[in-house]
Order: sequence, then C-alpha cells, then structure tokens
Amino acid sequence: MLAGERVALARLMTLVENRTLALPAIMSRLHPHTGRAHLIGITGPPGAGKSTLADRLVAHLRRTGRRVGVVAVDPSSPFSGGAVLGDRIRMQDHFLDAGVFIRSLSTRGSHGGLPRAARDVVRLLDAFGMDTIVVETVGVGQTELDVMRLADTILVVLVPEAGDAVQVMKAGLLEIADVFVVNKADRDGAMRMVTDLQQMLHLRPAAGWSVPVLATQAAHDVGIAEVVVELARHREVAAADPRRAGRDQARRAEELVDVLDEALRRRLEAGLGAARDGLAGLVAAVRAGTVDPYTAALRILGEPATLAGLVGLGAAAGDGGPT
Amino acid sequence: MLAGERVALARLMTLVENRTLALPAIMSRLHPHTGRAHLIGITGPPGAGKSTLADRLVAHLRRTGRRVGVVAVDPSSPFSGGAVLGDRIRMQDHFLDAGVFIRSLSTRGSHGGLPRAARDVVRLLDAFGMDTIVVETVGVGQTELDVMRLADTILVVLVPEAGDAVQVMKAGLLEIADVFVVNKADRDGAMRMVTDLQQMLHLRPAAGWSVPVLATQAAHDVGIAEVVVELARHREVAAADPRRAGRDQARRAEELVDVLDEALRRRLEAGLGAARDGLAGLVAAVRAGTVDPYTAALRILGEPATLAGLVGLGAAAGDGGPT
Repeated sequence: MLAGERVALARLMTLVENRTLALPAIMSRLHPHTGRAHLIGITGPPGAGKSTLADRLVAHLRRTGRRVGVVAVDPSSPFSGGAVLGDRIRMQDHFLDAGVFIRSLSTRGSHGGLPRAARDVVRLLDAFGMDTIVVETVGVGQTELDVMRLADTILVVLVPEAGDAVQVMKAGLLEIADVFVVNKADRDGAMRMVTDLQQMLHLRPAAGWSVPVLATQAAHDVGIAEVVVELARHREVAAADPRRAGRDQARRAEELVDVLDEALRRRLEAGLGAARDGLAGLVAAVRAGTVDPYTAALRILGEPATLAGLVGLGAAAGDGGPT
Repeated sequence: MLAGERVALARLMTLVENRTLALPAIMSRLHPHTGRAHLIGITGPPGAGKSTLADRLVAHLRRTGRRVGVVAVDPSSPFSGGAVLGDRIRMQDHFLDAGVFIRSLSTRGSHGGLPRAARDVVRLLDAFGMDTIVVETVGVGQTELDVMRLADTILVVLVPEAGDAVQVMKAGLLEIADVFVVNKADRDGAMRMVTDLQQMLHLRPAAGWSVPVLATQAAHDVGIAEVVVELARHREVAAADPRRAGRDQARRAEELVDVLDEALRRRLEAGLGAARDGLAGLVAAVRAGTVDPYTAALRILGEPATLAGLVGLGAAAGDGGPT
C-alpha cells in the first residue's frame, strides 16, 4: 500500500472496516506516514446536495494537481443501497482517475464504532499519499458530528428550504462549521438564509477565524472555486491557532483509551459467548430475560477472577463463574 | 422514586445522565418495576415539527388518562441552548401536570453513550409508572437511529419540503418507521409526499404490519387522533410478532456487554490518568504525539500485568508500566 498499490489500499480498508484484530499493528506501522493531508468534513441535512458538492470539489482539487481521497459515511440500510450507490455512481468520472480514491463506509453493526472506522480509513488515505481527504456524512446527528471532529476543516452544506436558522442551531451545526455553504442558491430564500447565517455568526465570539457563508449551485458548478479557496485559507489559520495543541493532546489521550477499550470489548464479547458453567447459565438467564443485564453485570464485576477470565487476564478464564 | 416522588425521579435521572458508578446497582433495583410502558420514538429531519407533534400527542394521551414521560435528545450545543429550550417551553402546559414528566438529555461528552443514557432514563420513567414514554431526537443520524432502537414503535415525521423520497431512503428512515407522518400537510407537495412514501412502502415485503402514512398539521392539532390510534395499533401487532423474542434476546445479551464495557472503559480512563513510572511516560508521549496511540496500545496489550493493573484486576496496578 505504501508503494502506491490501490488494491492493497482497498484491502486494508476492508480490514479496518471489519475491525480486524491486527488493527493496532497495521495502524502503528502506518502512523509515521500520516499527518500530511488536509482533512475536510462535509455535513448537512439529507438533500442538501453534499454528494454533488463533494464531486465538484474533487474535480476542482484535481485540476490543481492534488490527489484526493473521499470517504462517504452512509447509514446502514440494505434497502437504500441503490439510492446511495446512485450518488457514488455520479462520481464515476473519478473512478478512472488514479489521483482519486473513493470509499463508502457502512454503519451496519458499528455500535458507536463508526467514528473510529472513519478515522482509521482516513489515516490509510493519508498514508497512501492523498493531499486532501473529503469525509462526507449522510444526515445530521450525533455520530455524524463525532465523525466531523476528525476533520481539520468542517464544511456545512444547507439549502434554502432546509428550515429556518433555528433548525441549524438545533442540529448543532452552527458550532462546528468552519465554512458554511448555502447550496442550490438559485432557489427562493437563498440570500435570506445567507444573511440569517451571517447574523447568527456575528453573535458568536470570533477568535482568529470568522466563518464565511458562501452561496453555490453545485449542480451547475457555480461558486465552487470560492469554496476551495476558503477551505485552504481555514487550514492555514487553524494551524496557527494556539488552542489547537491542547485539543490535539486530549484527542490523542482519548484515542489511546478508545483503542484499549475496543480490544477489551471484543474480549468481553468472545468471553461471554464462550462462557461455561455458572457464567454460561448467567448469560442464558440474561438472554431469556429472567436476570436483567445490570444485575448480571454487578455479579460479574463483583468477582474479579470471573471478570479477569472474561477479558483474558486471569487463570480463571472460562473456569466457572458466578454462583 | 418508586413511591411517586418527582424530585427523586429527577435526581436519579441526573445520576443516570452522569453515568454514576452506582448505575448498575440502581438499574438492577428498578428492573422488576419496568416493562409496562409503551415506548414511542419520534425522529425525522430538523424542522419537521417533531416537538410540536410530541406536544400534541402528549395532550391527546393525557385526555385518555395515560401518564406520559417525554425524553428529548438534543445535540450538545451551549449556543443553541436557548433555541432548544424554546421547544421545551412550548411544552410548559404539561409542566404543571403531575401526569407528565419531561426531560432533555444532552449529548455533551457522551462519546457514543447517548443511546445508553436514553435507555436508562426511559427505564426510570417506566419504573416511575408512566404508561407511555415518548423519546424525541433532534436530527437524523446514526446515534439517533440507535436511540430509536429502544422504542416499541417508531414514528418518523417528515415535511413536504424535506427533500424527495430518495433522501428518506438515504437517511435510513424507511427501514425503521412503524408509522410515517407528513406534517405541515397544508403545504405544497404534502399529498405527493404521502403518495411517494406509500409507493416506496409497497415495494417492501410487509410482514404482519403495513406502515401507515398519515398527514398532520400538528400546529393546528389536525390529524393527531389518527396518529394515536395507529401507534396503539402498532404496539398490539408488534407484541404478537414471533420474531420479537429473538431480537429481544440478542438485545439483552448486547446490553450485558455494554454495561461491563462501560465499567471497564471507566477503569481504563482512571488507570491511565493515574499512571505512574513507565506507563505515565508512555501516556505523556501519546499526548505529546511522539508515540502514536496504536503503538502505545500494542505495548500495553502486550503486557497483561500492566493491562490488569489499569482495569483494577491485577496486583500490578500503577506499579510500573511498559519499559
């Protein structure tokens, strides 16, 4: 993969998405090759035209010679597969371009792990040598906001009919946006929305960077160059922000907890699945609903040997259980 | 709280939201008193009028004598506090009603734990004796879909201008809806949206329950009675679904893993924060960025005594670290 093999990159992405046991070893190995790319997050409500805007951004960035990775985070939905694929197909021009790599990440069974998978896939693209990585989420929710926390620069895309400014605040978008785009700006109410957003942003204390509000018509390739300029400008300003170091430190410490916790959770799942004797009986009782999960957890937490066995840290593994 | 003390209920909710260490003991104690309430989830894009609809539903349910709990899941946003509070204030008629209890849940710092906090707050309301519990999310994303998994019956609220039917599919809403409501049905395109949704639903294999699509004008109290009827009808049909038992078993087993994992993660955080000697040096190197989190995790996972110490399962706790 480090030699530029796209097939190797795709395989590593599948391993990452499946949360392979070898994940820490893989990511540890790649880490020295990461840290160069500009990571741009794109979010906004469904229907705002995020995919089309991402597609245009990629085209503009390619014209300046930059290599681009795209990570599309889609909700788990067997039924909607077709529709989501439709968006990806719109980007098919780029599939033939060796300077672009596109990956959709499914949320199926992610149980809160999606932001981690997205983070690791982004690192793969970074190590692969992409100059810019665009992460696009479908929808606006807590997980999507968590995914956006990965980004150096967050682009929030709205449409005039996305609801009033209060809705933007309710969805938590005002706080996270580094650049606002009002897309489909040929529609009624677009300029009103631009003005509303600008007024709301004026109420916020601006420290170093004042969030621009741009109007685009992505479907007609209007206004995209301005977006590219503002994204690059934000990266420069943000890199000089002194508060950034503290945030980075906290993020790294949290990631260490995440990686360890992911390993322990996996051991817990395996240990409970393979439980024998008294512990097996307890698990069966929880499944049947005769013992509630909290009561069962209390019993296991109260027996260090049983818990140690579950997470592979004791001689007591599988060797009995709560009585 | 079990004696009907509202103040005690509010205090327990704060403990649950803060993920108190006593959580397993509290939930274990309350479990025998839960399982009676009808849990209704309300979701949909920002601006669909979910809060207003929830308010009207509460009023209708109260007229039939039912006691109602409301849990509003808001994104973390210091700035939007006022706006979100605005919604809650709309429900202030109910604040004076002893048969209603309303709680907003913040996502601040939840790190994927929001669905768990929502689940536990719902259980408190259930144990308190509420007949119906309404859980409302702001926005449509993966976390919101996870929160909805708690519900017996999921109501998806859309507005005519919410985007076309494809957007509904992209957000994963078609799969989870038990009842669809097209709100603000006096606006252009409402009947078209009802028809589109009905056609999409016809493409799905209906097993036992065919999802109704209702038109409402929540702000004018139009169409709410029909929604109440369909919600109750869904509960009866779903209770008779034979696939339900298997899903419930899997959900209980997963909850046991969740509770244990939450305890272990907390121990990890405390253990890493209080690390001494070599381990403290490793944590400092991760924070500074000189050792990446995966490499550090590999070293800790490779030393069972260090890991056991971190999660309080070994004599080696705080007693050194990787060298």
